[in-house]
Amino acid sequence: MDIYESSLALHAKLRGKLAVQPLIKVEDKEALSNAYTPGVAAPCKEIAKDPDAAYVYTRKWNTVAVVSDGSAVLGLGNIGGLAGLPVMEGKSLLFKEFADIDSVPIVLSGQDEDDIVKAVEMIAPTFGGINLEDICAPKCFAVEKKLKERLDIPVFHDDQHGTAIVVTAALFNALKVCGKRMEEAQIVICGAGSAGIAICKLLLESGARHIVMADRQGLVAEGEAWLTSAQAEIARVTNRQKKLGTLADAVRGADVFIGVSAPKQLTQEMVKSMAQKPVIFAMANPEPEIYPEEAIAGGAYVVGTGRSDFPNQINNLLAFPGVFRGALDVRAKDISEGMKVAAAKALAALAGEDLSREYIIPSPFDRRVASAVAKAVAEQAKKEGLARL
Amino acid sequence: MDIYESSLALHAKLRGKLAVQPLIKVEDKEALSNAYTPGVAAPCKEIAKDPDAAYVYTRKWNTVAVVSDGSAVLGLGNIGGLAGLPVMEGKSLLFKEFADIDSVPIVLSGQDEDDIVKAVEMIAPTFGGINLEDICAPKCFAVEKKLKERLDIPVFHDDQHGTAIVVTAALFNALKVCGKRMEEAQIVICGAGSAGIAICKLLLESGARHIVMADRQGLVAEGEAWLTSAQAEIARVTNRQKKLGTLADAVRGADVFIGVSAPKQLTQEMVKSMAQKPVIFAMANPEPEIYPEEAIAGGAYVVGTGRSDFPNQINNLLAFPGVFRGALDVRAKDISEGMKVAAAKALAALAGEDLSREYIIPSPFDRRVASAVAKAVAEQAKKEGLARL
Repeated sequence: MDIYESSLALHAKLRGKLAVQPLIKVEDKEALSNAYTPGVAAPCKEIAKDPDAAYVYTRKWNTVAVVSDGSAVLGLGNIGGLAGLPVMEGKSLLFKEFADIDSVPIVLSGQDEDDIVKAVEMIAPTFGGINLEDICAPKCFAVEKKLKERLDIPVFHDDQHGTAIVVTAALFNALKVCGKRMEEAQIVICGAGSAGIAICKLLLESGARHIVMADRQGLVAEGEAWLTSAQAEIARVTNRQKKLGTLADAVRGADVFIGVSAPKQLTQEMVKSMAQKPVIFAMANPEPEIYPEEAIAGGAYVVGTGRSDFPNQINNLLAFPGVFRGALDVRAKDISEGMKVAAAKALAALAGEDLSREYIIPSPFDRRVASAVAKAVAEQAKKEGLARL
Repeated sequence: MDIYESSLALHAKLRGKLAVQPLIKVEDKEALSNAYTPGVAAPCKEIAKDPDAAYVYTRKWNTVAVVSDGSAVLGLGNIGGLAGLPVMEGKSLLFKEFADIDSVPIVLSGQDEDDIVKAVEMIAPTFGGINLEDICAPKCFAVEKKLKERLDIPVFHDDQHGTAIVVTAALFNALKVCGKRMEEAQIVICGAGSAGIAICKLLLESGARHIVMADRQGLVAEGEAWLTSAQAEIARVTNRQKKLGTLADAVRGADVFIGVSAPKQLTQEMVKSMAQKPVIFAMANPEPEIYPEEAIAGGAYVVGTGRSDFPNQINNLLAFPGVFRGALDVRAKDISEGMKVAAAKALAALAGEDLSREYIIPSPFDRRVASAVAKAVAEQAKKEGLARL
C-alpha cells in the first residue's frame, strides 16, 4: 500500500480529522442557565460595550480560520474549495498539534477575488486570526492586502510567508556555515510566483541586497514586458544590473540558489558555475530542482529541500504554528514584516550551536520550535505597537 | 451571586465553551504524510471527482455552522455579531451535547441581507448544514429563502422553525389532553414576528384550520395597511372571517392562545372569555404573557411557558439537535415542512402514555428526545427524496 492508498484508507476511517470538544457539560438546568440562556446575556452585554471583551469571554482568543478557495492546492492545482477540505482539515490539525490553536477549516464555493475578501471580512469577528491557504497567484496578493487593510486581526497567507520565514531562517544558518554574509551574498530565486516573491521580500527585509529572480520567461528585470504587477514591483528592488538571459546566466557566480519552481531546473553544470561553497535550496515538491546527491557532486556546500527524506527539510510547519501562537498570545492586530523576520531569527537561533552542513534548521517535530517562534513574534508585536496585550 | 454574575464568571473562567479536538496525533513523519502532505492528495482527488465524497473523507458529514449577524439576540436586540458570539458558542455546545454534532459558531461583521446570503453561500461547502440564529425579521425570511434555493445542504432558522416544531408538538398533546382536535381548534397566535409566523405555518401544515394572528397594531387580516409582506402572505390563509379588533376580541371563544410576544399581554379576564378547557402557551421570555397561576385561576386547562421553573417548558432545545442529527444522518439536501411536522409528531409521541395537563412535552434533558426526533426526520427526508443516503 503506497502513501496515497494508506492516506485514503485513514481518511475513510476517521471521516474527518477534527471534531468539536465541549469545555463544559450541559446536563442540567443550572448548567444550561449559565452556559446559555438566560445567563449568557451577561458576557454578550460586556462584549457589546467593549469588543475586546470577546477575547475574554469567548474562544476568539485561540481561534484561527484556515480559509481556502482551493484554487492552488498542493501539486493538484485548481480543484476548488470543497476538494481542498482534506488539506485544510490537515492544516487545522497541525495548528492544534503544534501550537494548541483551535483552528476551523473554511472552504469557499467561489473563487472571485472580491467575493473571497467580502466573505472573510464577514466571518472575521469569530476569529483571532485568518490563515489564507492554497489561493493562486496573483489573486492571493490582492486578497491578503485588502484583508490586512480591512481587518484588525492577523491575516497571513501561509504559502507565501510561512515558506519565506523558514527559507530565511535556513539561509541565515547556511550562510553562517559557509562563512558568508547575507548583505553580500548573490542570491538567485527560481520561481517568481507567490512563494518566490514572498521569500524575496523577506530576504530583503533581513538584509539581503543582491537578489535576482528567475521565472519561466527569463530573469525578472525592470522593464521586461512579461512581468506581472507583483513581479514588476519586485523588479524595482532586485536585479539592479538588469541582467537578462536564462537561469544558467543568473546562477553563474552566485552564492545561493533558492528553488520554488519545478523539477530538474538546476543542473550539476550550473552548480559548478556558482561561487565557492554554494548554498542550494531545491524545494519543488515532490521532485526537487536538483537532487542533493547531484548538487553535492557539483560542489554544493549546503543543500536543503522540502522533503523529509533528506537533511535540512525546509518545511513551513516550522513557522505557521508559532507565528499564530505568538500573534494570538498578545492579541495582535496584524502580522508585520518585522514579526516575520523575528520568527525567522528565532528559528535560526534554535539550530544554534549544533550548526553543520546537514543541520541548518530544526526538525519539524522539534517541540521547542513553536514556543520559541511564538515568543519572538509576540515580543516583536509589542515592540511595533501591534499587540492588544 | 445571580445567574448573570455566575454566568459571567463561568465565561471568564472557560474563555470559550468549545475547543477543537484532533482525531489523530501527528507526532512523526509517517502520521504527517498520511494526515497531510503528500498523502492527503488522495482524498482531495476523490472529492474533485465526486463532491459527495466529502461526506466520506472529511468532517462535513457531522458539521453544522451556527451563523448569526447578531441583529436579534435573545432579549438583547441588535447587539451585532461579535457580541452575540457567547450565544452562538452556547448553541454549538448544545449541538454537541445533545446530538454529538460538531458545530462551528460563525458571527458576521455585516448585517445587510445580501451580504449575509453571499457570505453563507461562500462558506457553505465546509458544512453539512446551516443553522441561522438570532437574525431579525423580516430579513430572516429572505435570508433563509434565498439560501434554501441556492444551497444543497439544509438551512434552518432555529428561532422560527425550532420554536414552531416544539409548539406544534406541545399543541398536539395539549389538545389530546383537552379532548379537542387540531382541525377544529380556534387558535390565536399573539406576536406576528418570525417565530409567530413560523408557528402559524407549521400548525397549518399539521392540520390546523382556524388561526388568527395578532400583533401590536391589531389582528392580522387581509387588506390591513400595516402588514409586512410576510404578514400579508399569512393573512391569505388565516383569519378568513377577516376579524378586526384587539387581542381580547380574538381570544374570546378561542381554544388556544399561543404567545410569542411580550410580558402581560394576556389577562385573567381574557382567559375567562375563552372556550372551555383553554390551552395557554405563554412563551415570552423571561416574563410570560401571563403567569401559569393566573392563567389557571382564569380557567386555563393546560399551560406551557418557555421557562424551566414551571411545568410544560416549551424549549427549542427539544427540536434543533434532533432535526439536524436526522438531516445529517441521511445527508439531507434540505429540511422540508414535512420533516418539521415529522419532528413535531415524534416529539409529541415521546410524551405519549404519560400525558397529563402538566406533562404535554418531554423535558429538555430527556435523553431520548434527539434520537427519536432524528429518526423521524431522517425517515421523512428519505420519503420526500431529500436524502443522499
